[in-house]
Amino acid sequence: MAMTGGEYVLKSAAAHSIGVCFANPGTTEMALVDALDATPQVRGVLGLFEGVCTGMADGYARMTGKPALTMLHLGVGLGNGIANLHNARRAYSPIVNLVGDHPQEHLPYDAPLTSDIATMAAPVSDWVGAGGRVAALPEAFRHAADSAGQRPGGIATLILPADVMAADVGELGEPEAREVRRRPVDAGAVERVAKIVAEKRGAGLLLGGTALLRESLKQLEAVARKTGAQLLAEPFPARMDRGAGLPDLIRLPYFPEAVLERLQGFDTLVLVGAKPPVSFFKYPGYPSSLVPESCRVETLCAPDEDAAAYAAALAEALGAAGGNGGSTGPERPDAPSGALTTKSLGQAVAAALPEHAIIADESATSGGPAYHLTKQGPAHSAMYLTGGGIGMGLPAATGAAVACPDRPVLALQADGGGMYTLQALWTQAREGLNVTNVILVNRKYQILQVEHGRASQSGMGETARGLTELRDPELDWCALAQGMGVAPRRPQSAEGLHTALKNSLEEPGPSLIEVVLE
Amino acid sequence: MAMTGGEYVLKSAAAHSIGVCFANPGTTEMALVDALDATPQVRGVLGLFEGVCTGMADGYARMTGKPALTMLHLGVGLGNGIANLHNARRAYSPIVNLVGDHPQEHLPYDAPLTSDIATMAAPVSDWVGAGGRVAALPEAFRHAADSAGQRPGGIATLILPADVMAADVGELGEPEAREVRRRPVDAGAVERVAKIVAEKRGAGLLLGGTALLRESLKQLEAVARKTGAQLLAEPFPARMDRGAGLPDLIRLPYFPEAVLERLQGFDTLVLVGAKPPVSFFKYPGYPSSLVPESCRVETLCAPDEDAAAYAAALAEALGAAGGNGGSTGPERPDAPSGALTTKSLGQAVAAALPEHAIIADESATSGGPAYHLTKQGPAHSAMYLTGGGIGMGLPAATGAAVACPDRPVLALQADGGGMYTLQALWTQAREGLNVTNVILVNRKYQILQVEHGRASQSGMGETARGLTELRDPELDWCALAQGMGVAPRRPQSAEGLHTALKNSLEEPGPSLIEVVLE
Repeated sequence: MAMTGGEYVLKSAAAHSIGVCFANPGTTEMALVDALDATPQVRGVLGLFEGVCTGMADGYARMTGKPALTMLHLGVGLGNGIANLHNARRAYSPIVNLVGDHPQEHLPYDAPLTSDIATMAAPVSDWVGAGGRVAALPEAFRHAADSAGQRPGGIATLILPADVMAADVGELGEPEAREVRRRPVDAGAVERVAKIVAEKRGAGLLLGGTALLRESLKQLEAVARKTGAQLLAEPFPARMDRGAGLPDLIRLPYFPEAVLERLQGFDTLVLVGAKPPVSFFKYPGYPSSLVPESCRVETLCAPDEDAAAYAAALAEALGAAGGNGGSTGPERPDAPSGALTTKSLGQAVAAALPEHAIIADESATSGGPAYHLTKQGPAHSAMYLTGGGIGMGLPAATGAAVACPDRPVLALQADGGGMYTLQALWTQAREGLNVTNVILVNRKYQILQVEHGRASQSGMGETARGLTELRDPELDWCALAQGMGVAPRRPQSAEGLHTALKNSLEEPGPSLIEVVLE
Repeated sequence: MAMTGGEYVLKSAAAHSIGVCFANPGTTEMALVDALDATPQVRGVLGLFEGVCTGMADGYARMTGKPALTMLHLGVGLGNGIANLHNARRAYSPIVNLVGDHPQEHLPYDAPLTSDIATMAAPVSDWVGAGGRVAALPEAFRHAADSAGQRPGGIATLILPADVMAADVGELGEPEAREVRRRPVDAGAVERVAKIVAEKRGAGLLLGGTALLRESLKQLEAVARKTGAQLLAEPFPARMDRGAGLPDLIRLPYFPEAVLERLQGFDTLVLVGAKPPVSFFKYPGYPSSLVPESCRVETLCAPDEDAAAYAAALAEALGAAGGNGGSTGPERPDAPSGALTTKSLGQAVAAALPEHAIIADESATSGGPAYHLTKQGPAHSAMYLTGGGIGMGLPAATGAAVACPDRPVLALQADGGGMYTLQALWTQAREGLNVTNVILVNRKYQILQVEHGRASQSGMGETARGLTELRDPELDWCALAQGMGVAPRRPQSAEGLHTALKNSLEEPGPSLIEVVLE
C-alpha cells in the first residue's frame, strides 16, 4: 500500500497513542502536513509562532502525562521554539519535535535556510536523531517515542528531511501499536527510604514531578500523618494538584534566604522526584545549594523517574496507603470589593474558581495572594514556570485546554511575559478553547526592579529603570485580544473583576481580562 | 577608578564605535543594564521579545554596516533571538550578542535557567566566547568586535557571567579606542577577473553584499557599460540600493526553473560578494546548483569579503571608474484607483515612496508589483529576507529607523511573518520611529499553498489547507497596532491606500496600514 514518509511518521505517532500535533509548518514540512489528512487520529493545531507550539505541547504534556508532537520548520522554526522547549524539558514534559529539513543531498549547497539543526536542538533535547533515510524511519521514531514517553518524559527531536517525508515508504508496512517500556521502581530505594522516614520522625519530603498529582498527594499525606513527616513542594512545579481534599504543603519560596529559613530545623530531607534545592540565581553571600548544613538529603527517586510510582510504593511500604488527603471541603473568601490589587485579584480568583479548573500560573510578582487564597479552594491543578523562561503561560494554558476540554483554564499571566507569546490567543480563538486569560498589568518587569533592589544599595539610574518599564506607550491588552479574535474585558474594580472572572470561566471559548493593578 | 565589568564591556563597545544596544535583559544582566547609565555613548533600546532585539540589530547593521549590541537573558533569551540571528548571519550583518549567564560557580547546581548557551549559540554565530573571568574580558571583547566588525560582518556571541559583570574591574583601566583590522583586497583576484570580464564580453556579474550599495552599483554599471557585462543581484539581498540613478539589474528569482532560465546564455558568471546560485528548496527534477552546465563561475570575492572594495578595485582595473549609474530621474506610476490588489498596492507604494526611503521587504508572495514598480522610482534602499526565516521585517524596519532617523522606513510585511515578531511595533512607538508598517493581508501562508501546488498533482486536503490559512478568526491588525500604541489605518480602496501611505510616510512616528488584498 502506498504511504508517504510523512504518513508513516504520523501513523507511528498514533501507534504510540500520540494524538495531537502543535504545528507551524513550512515548505520542508508539506508532506507531513498532507499526512494529517490521511491520519485523522492525530489532530493538527496551528500556532502562529513556534514558541506558541512548543509551549502548547508543554501544557498538553503537563496535563496528560502524554507526549504531543510539534511540527517545526527547519532550524529557524526550532529556534523560535527553544525557550518553551527549555521550560518543557525542565518540567520533564514529554514532547516529540518533528523538525523538517532539506533533503540531505541539498545540505552541502548551504541554501539560505540551512542550519545545524542537531546542534541547535541539543541543549533542549534529551534525544536528537534524524530520519535521514526511509529505512531508518521506524527505529528513529521508536527512539524518539521511547525518549519522550518515559514517565516523567523527555524532549525528543526528530529531524525529517523533506524528500524522505514525501517518498513512498509503503515497504515499511503499517506501524504497529507499541507501548514505551518504562523503568521499574527500585524496591531497594523504597525500602531504605521507608525505614528512614519511619525512624526519623519529622523528615521533610520534598516533592516534585508526578508526586504532586492528586493520588500521590493523598498517599503521601497518609505517610506524613503516620510518620510525622512534612510535605514540601519544589518552588515551580510542572503541575501541582491543589485545593479541597489535598494536604496543605509548603511550596519552597524563590529567594535563597527564604528557602533556607523554611528548611531550617529539618535534619532529613527526602527527595521524591525533586532536585536538591538550589538558588534560582546566585547572590553574593548566599550559597548555591540551599540545603542547610545540618540537613541530610536522601533520595527516594530523581526528577527523571516516575515519582508517582515511588510515592505509591513508599506509602505501601509504610502501611500508609488509603489516605483521604486530610483536609475538608473548599473554603472560599468572599468576593472582594474596592481597588484592583494583587490581594483583591487573589480574592476574586479564589472566589470565582470553578471545580477542577486548571491554572497556568506565570503571575511573577503579582500572584502571591492568588496562590495562597486558592490553597483551600475547590480542587484544581496548577502549572508553574518550571524552567524560568518567561512566555510559557499563555501557550501552556492553550495546550492544557486542548488536553482537557472539560476543564476551564485560567491563565494568570504577568504582562511582561505575556508579550512574549501573545499569539497563543489566536489559537485559543480558532480552537474555541475555554481559556480565561487574566493579564496582570503592572507595566514593568517588576522582578528586575526587585532584584536590582537586592543587588544594589543605590537606586536605579534613569536608563536602567527605563529598560524595566513597559510604559510610553502603555500596552492595551484589550485591543491585542480583539486583534486575535478573543473577547476582552477590562474591569475597573475588584467587584467587576470577580464578575468578569465568573462570566469568563462559565462561557465557552476564550476571553481576556486586563487587570491594571494599583 | 571603580568600574564594573558591565561598564567595561559597554565602554569597550563605545571604544569600537558601537553605539546601540537592543536589549531585553533579565536578572543576570542587571549589571549590564546599570552600566548603560554610566555609558551614555551606548543607547539602550528595549524590545519586548528577544527576536525583536536581534532583528532590530540586523536592520541596524544592514543600514550602517556597523555592529550593534544585543543584550539577551541566558539561553532562553538567546533562543528567542535565534531565528533573526540566523537571518542576520546570512546577511553578514555585524552583531555582538551580550548573553548574560549565571556565575560559573553556580552552573554545576543546574538551576532552572541553566543551559548550554555556547552550544545553542554556535549554529548562528561566527564566534562564541565567554568573559568568564575579569582578566579575560579585554581579549574576549576584542575577539567579539573583530569577528563582528569585519566588512561584511559576522555574529559574535559573548557569554557574560553575572558576577563578572557586577565585579569591580577598575584594574583593567579604560578601554581604548580601537579599529578592527580588515582583510585587504586580493589584487591578484582583481587582476585575473578584470581580464576575464574584459575578454569575455557579456559576462554576468552576480552581486551580493555591499556590492549592491549605491557607490558600488555606479562603479559596476560603468564596468558593464565598458565591457558589455550584465549586472545581476542575488535573490534576497541584505540591502540593495535602488531607484533613480542606479542601474536596472536582474535580481535572481526564487524558483529554480526561473533562475536557470535567467542564467541561460551566460558563459561566464562572476561572483562579486555573492554565492553561486542554489535552489532555495530542493525540488524533484531540479538540481541544487542553479549554475547552467555551460556556464563557468569565477569568483572576484566571496560573500564574507568586502565586496564594495572589490567592486571599486575591479572598476579601477578596467578603467571604468566614475560611472554615473546610467539611468535618469525617477519615474512614478500614477496613483492607483479601484480594488486593493498586489498590483494596486505596488502602484500606491511606487507613487508615494519618498526620496531616500528604506523598504524592509518581507512581502512574500504579495510584493512582486511593488518591487518592479519602485525599480525606477526615487532613490531608496531595500532589505530582503536573506536568511529565509520569517519574522524579520518589522524588527529590521525598526532597527533601520534607529540607524537612519532622517530616512522614512516602509515595512512591506506579509501577515503570516508579521505575527512572528509583532512586538516590534511597541518599540517603534516608544522610540518615536518613523516607520510605516504596511501589512499585506491575504489571510494565509500563501507560499505554502503555492509550494503545495508545485509538489502535488492532487489538491490539498481539508486539514492541510486549514494549517495554511489564517482564518477563523481573522486577525485585526488595526487592533493589534492600537494595542501597542501605533496609529492604525485600514484603507478600503487603492486611492485610500495611496493617501494613507503618503500621510503615514510624512508624519513623524510609526503607523500601521492594514491592506486586505483581494
